Amino acid sequence: MGVRVAVNGYGVIGKRVADAVAAQDDMTLVGVADVASDYRLRVAVERGYAVYAATPEARAQMEAAGIPVAGTLAELVHGADVVVDCTPKGVAAKNRDLYAAAGVKAVWQGGEKHETAGYSFVAQVNYAGALGRDAARVVSCNTTALTRVLGALDGAGLVKRARAVLLRRATDPWESHKNGTINTVVPETRVPSHQGPDARTVLPDLDITTVAATGPFNLGHVHFLMVETPRPVGLEEVKAALAAAPRIAFVRAGDGLEAANAVIELMRDLGRPRADMWEVAVWEDALAVDGREIYLTLQVHNEAIVVPETIDCVRALTGIEPSAEASIARTDAALGVTKTYLPASQQRAATAP
Amino acid sequence: MGVRVAVNGYGVIGKRVADAVAAQDDMTLVGVADVASDYRLRVAVERGYAVYAATPEARAQMEAAGIPVAGTLAELVHGADVVVDCTPKGVAAKNRDLYAAAGVKAVWQGGEKHETAGYSFVAQVNYAGALGRDAARVVSCNTTALTRVLGALDGAGLVKRARAVLLRRATDPWESHKNGTINTVVPETRVPSHQGPDARTVLPDLDITTVAATGPFNLGHVHFLMVETPRPVGLEEVKAALAAAPRIAFVRAGDGLEAANAVIELMRDLGRPRADMWEVAVWEDALAVDGREIYLTLQVHNEAIVVPETIDCVRALTGIEPSAEASIARTDAALGVTKTYLPASQQRAATAP
Amino acid sequence: MGVRVAVNGYGVIGKRVADAVAAQDDMTLVGVADVASDYRLRVAVERGYAVYAATPEARAQMEAAGIPVAGTLAELVHGADVVVDCTPKGVAAKNRDLYAAAGVKAVWQGGEKHETAGYSFVAQVNYAGALGRDAARVVSCNTTALTRVLGALDGAGLVKRARAVLLRRATDPWESHKNGTINTVVPETRVPSHQGPDARTVLPDLDITTVAATGPFNLGHVHFLMVETPRPVGLEEVKAALAAAPRIAFVRAGDGLEAANAVIELMRDLGRPRADMWEVAVWEDALAVDGREIYLTLQVHNEAIVVPETIDCVRALTGIEPSAEASIARTDAALGVTKTYLPASQQRAATAP
Amino acid sequence: MGVRVAVNGYGVIGKRVADAVAAQDDMTLVGVADVASDYRLRVAVERGYAVYAATPEARAQMEAAGIPVAGTLAELVHGADVVVDCTPKGVAAKNRDLYAAAGVKAVWQGGEKHETAGYSFVAQVNYAGALGRDAARVVSCNTTALTRVLGALDGAGLVKRARAVLLRRATDPWESHKNGTINTVVPETRVPSHQGPDARTVLPDLDITTVAATGPFNLGHVHFLMVETPRPVGLEEVKAALAAAPRIAFVRAGDGLEAANAVIELMRDLGRPRADMWEVAVWEDALAVDGREIYLTLQVHNEAIVVPETIDCVRALTGIEPSAEASIARTDAALGVTKTYLPASQQRAATAP
Repeated sequence: MGVRVAVNGYGVIGKRVADAVAAQDDMTLVGVADVASDYRLRVAVERGYAVYAATPEARAQMEAAGIPVAGTLAELVHGADVVVDCTPKGVAAKNRDLYAAAGVKAVWQGGEKHETAGYSFVAQVNYAGALGRDAARVVSCNTTALTRVLGALDGAGLVKRARAVLLRRATDPWESHKNGTINTVVPETRVPSHQGPDARTVLPDLDITTVAATGPFNLGHVHFLMVETPRPVGLEEVKAALAAAPRIAFVRAGDGLEAANAVIELMRDLGRPRADMWEVAVWEDALAVDGREIYLTLQVHNEAIVVPETIDCVRALTGIEPSAEASIARTDAALGVTKTYLPASQQRAATAP
Repeated sequence: MGVRVAVNGYGVIGKRVADAVAAQDDMTLVGVADVASDYRLRVAVERGYAVYAATPEARAQMEAAGIPVAGTLAELVHGADVVVDCTPKGVAAKNRDLYAAAGVKAVWQGGEKHETAGYSFVAQVNYAGALGRDAARVVSCNTTALTRVLGALDGAGLVKRARAVLLRRATDPWESHKNGTINTVVPETRVPSHQGPDARTVLPDLDITTVAATGPFNLGHVHFLMVETPRPVGLEEVKAALAAAPRIAFVRAGDGLEAANAVIELMRDLGRPRADMWEVAVWEDALAVDGREIYLTLQVHNEAIVVPETIDCVRALTGIEPSAEASIARTDAALGVTKTYLPASQQRAATAP
Repeated sequence: MGVRVAVNGYGVIGKRVADAVAAQDDMTLVGVADVASDYRLRVAVERGYAVYAATPEARAQMEAAGIPVAGTLAELVHGADVVVDCTPKGVAAKNRDLYAAAGVKAVWQGGEKHETAGYSFVAQVNYAGALGRDAARVVSCNTTALTRVLGALDGAGLVKRARAVLLRRATDPWESHKNGTINTVVPETRVPSHQGPDARTVLPDLDITTVAATGPFNLGHVHFLMVETPRPVGLEEVKAALAAAPRIAFVRAGDGLEAANAVIELMRDLGRPRADMWEVAVWEDALAVDGREIYLTLQVHNEAIVVPETIDCVRALTGIEPSAEASIARTDAALGVTKTYLPASQQRAATAP
Repeated sequence: MGVRVAVNGYGVIGKRVADAVAAQDDMTLVGVADVASDYRLRVAVERGYAVYAATPEARAQMEAAGIPVAGTLAELVHGADVVVDCTPKGVAAKNRDLYAAAGVKAVWQGGEKHETAGYSFVAQVNYAGALGRDAARVVSCNTTALTRVLGALDGAGLVKRARAVLLRRATDPWESHKNGTINTVVPETRVPSHQGPDARTVLPDLDITTVAATGPFNLGHVHFLMVETPRPVGLEEVKAALAAAPRIAFVRAGDGLEAANAVIELMRDLGRPRADMWEVAVWEDALAVDGREIYLTLQVHNEAIVVPETIDCVRALTGIEPSAEASIARTDAALGVTKTYLPASQQRAATAP
């Protein structure tokens, strides 16, 4: 049955992690815990997941709502080798002691501080360092995207200094009826924003500054990157570096993928579950160099991008797979993560004069 | 191989119809035709669909884009028993002659006039009348929803006169970067709006008046129905009538499904392709009666709702299935259309004191 | 100096009421009270309004923010003949005792219950009944709009039964960065909604049912009315009834006023303060009759519509003007409330063949 | 009567320029020309502006709509000393010959190419160079904002190299019912975008790169600037440079001005016509320096920002005011352009420990 994985917190990230765990053949989802008793938990039951109540109050509500409760959070944790904590910020602190007491390894999400886990993880950058650890933090959606792309460029020696403007979605689709914004932009007054320092928890030597704002949309974030290079760099060299790294895929306005909504429509058309995009999408036709700098525009599907990293992190902590490359390949095959959304188009690009 | 079906127009409706045809075991998708050569057609190729060029210009563009072209629209039509025309309004007129010349039966969509096909079709209302015809029109998303719900109530003798306000989405997700509206409501000045008369192409005796407007969202339409009853009617009687009819499903704000976005999130969680909702969703906890009238609030997923009707219409025209009930059941099983999104919740409702 | 008016609560309504009081020549604004110390209160200072602190904590914050504090809420109230309470729901209860202790008359807003004031007020309907009272409630924006329009029609004997669907804005512009919704519609599950019964606090014999929902916009509400008539009614009769009543004005899609945003743009072009629309806008070219019913589409600028009613209510309570007509005329002249936004257009309509 | 000014094109910019001309005591608005006959032109008539028909067809439509037509565009131009061309892109070319034939000076807007006028104008940067010219182009809203701010910093020796991400509004409020976007971000694939080179038509030595995208809102643009400095620079030095330049004003999230909508609400509260903001708003509490770079976040009200520049440009071309400072001061006094939205707040900042 493989590694026994529990998911605590069945929200935007937790429900996707649960599905992703269930899709791996070296892991078993032992159950999910939450405090809600709405449609989301009902669907978990329909999917055959064992649902645990994270609190006594939640148990009563779940039972009143007709949701069969498999047990308490403590019971769930005790039956697991690893728990993936997907609870909201602030809930984590007390969970930490619970997991430690149960002797279970823990994967934290990016909303938690680096110090909670002591190790910030992005599979393609620092998988090896997480091998056998008791805990690690999969960094946030924004940091994961920045780290994947800048890590790829940095690994090819193309980064001297990076600047990024992060335009964030105001809320997620499921709660857009209560937490949104209308007809505005909200700049973050903390400048530089926290994502730059957070990226350095994974890439310590990266010289990066980020500025952030939110806008009235919910399909994910859009990043604008300006990367100073140590020397003049050609466009093909940049593309090659991005093409060589996992979980980065090109999209092209010239293929009709002119905006964030169109990219998500592609995910729908590709049959992705929940129209999820696990890859960082890089607009190939907005990619530019000018002799001293690289300009990139990214779409980051915040609901889904950290899901493959989370699966890899389970493998690293438990040590069931010592190789980053092998884990990434296994996760990507199980989920359907790709480097190439539209193969025919790639072919065309390759053969164009 | 069953009935050979061609789909002309691979847009919002066409691509869904193609997938739905491919999912039936008594039909074969012989190909799809379009004039575009963007990501949508590339995905069609990836799905293994034969792509035909609707015009010579389109062929040249498709080939330049690396899309293998299986032939012309005329060739596609000649190899089919039925063509489903999903082209935009205005293109249809010339297609009609092409289909007639090829001796192929035609299913039209609701954007076309009743007169184009001579028969307006909603499976659960008038399937039998379409048996063996050369053509029929599957009515629009709005009309399909109104007809399903009011047909169900009318069949139970509950409708004296119906009034509806239709709040329509401004555009579809795939083209929301160019055809949207921002921070406004656009009332339709044609009052009553055309949907009322259109419903009478299916339910000729229905006394209905509709008023319409559009709002700045793209997740489908929301209908507010006020139905005068010939006598005082109880809530359970209304629920029973709706529960007995196909392709109508209840959602409950009490389950967290408080708004259109939450209902679509449920479709995502249920693993629906493209997060599609083929059913009319009726808010059970917004359903009310007051002794002389029934009040209903519906969510209509305009991208998907007519897809099952279209499949049934193919069966009716070709006569491969004489029974409406059997065709509906077959379509619904193949696609996953349901009467009950959350069975546990139903159970709870049934056992509540 | 006229009647001394205090405004408690300097938010969306309060700041407009303060300006409107200041614009009357039979009233004096003695000051405004609030608990905030942000840009809104700074502007009040710039306008020369005396700013009072509604709580001791607020006073400290205001002073720390450099806002000169004129005194306490109690002091403000003691120096006034009438206080207009524009505080948020829930704050009112304790204010009521404060006002009573100070022997000051009170105008409440529509968020409060009818019972708080004992009298619900719409100037053109029931001004006389408020003469000399100690308190009255100016009904909410939605109820004011319904009452103005249905009162006008009812007064002309045109209403047998009214049905309305109210599409409400999700939040107001000033707080759209924190309280909005994105890409959704939120139906109210309480059906019929509270606005229908609320309208009967002003028009007790009105047979009305309302259904409500909110959408992702902030420019005001849009109402769709279906009014059964006791006899066949002609369009000109309806227009005449609306034209004869105060604070109802026609807009025409044919003049380019095709949607809520265009109507607000007209208010901007007309030089209205804050682009406010005090009138109920009725789309003249969406107005329809069909022999048994009248159909109306209204735009209701929720930020502004109750402001003139509030001024009239001050006059009624204090008895400085016994005539509703005279008070309405005086208020409307001082603010610029009109029956005709575009006179040339009216002329054209009048002379068209 | 001063300089006789004609405005050709009575849209978003033209109607504001007309009002601004009418507010100057050294200019006379001789009339406005357009091809539309909707509410906008009706309001022009109400304001007492002479309305000219830009084409014979427009004349017929205006007259049919009851708009009194003062004459043809040629007649308007012949009676003017200067024409401000606010027509849409593409219409300008033929107008150019018309203006030349009439011997009238021309002010062009930023949608036209630099070459059309031969001189690109921002009052505080290069007023003198436009003195006595036959034509000049007031640069676009984005370029005006960049030039004002970077010109101010550059004049203080603080700019080595500038990078900017421009998040543009998708459409303007008046046409948001037909030209908007929903729930998406549309990156511009031309990278760097045209605004950088355009800024160099005014500041030729500026080293600047811009990247652009649009979002689903209509309240103006938001710019994120990262300015490399030739030496470490302190925050107070940056503030002083911005404070010394005209038409740049600080806003503070700490005053409740946390987002674009709140800033526009401030304009409403300040009683600005159409809630216009002629200044570039710089978020003071998002302003940051880090020893090598300055970070700025700007709000640019694209509807209004170029209006004062246009007035100054009229003065420069006609030579009625040889001094940039004097013209700017005169324009700003007439319109109400300010350096300080909330004086009390400034005082507070000055006296804080």
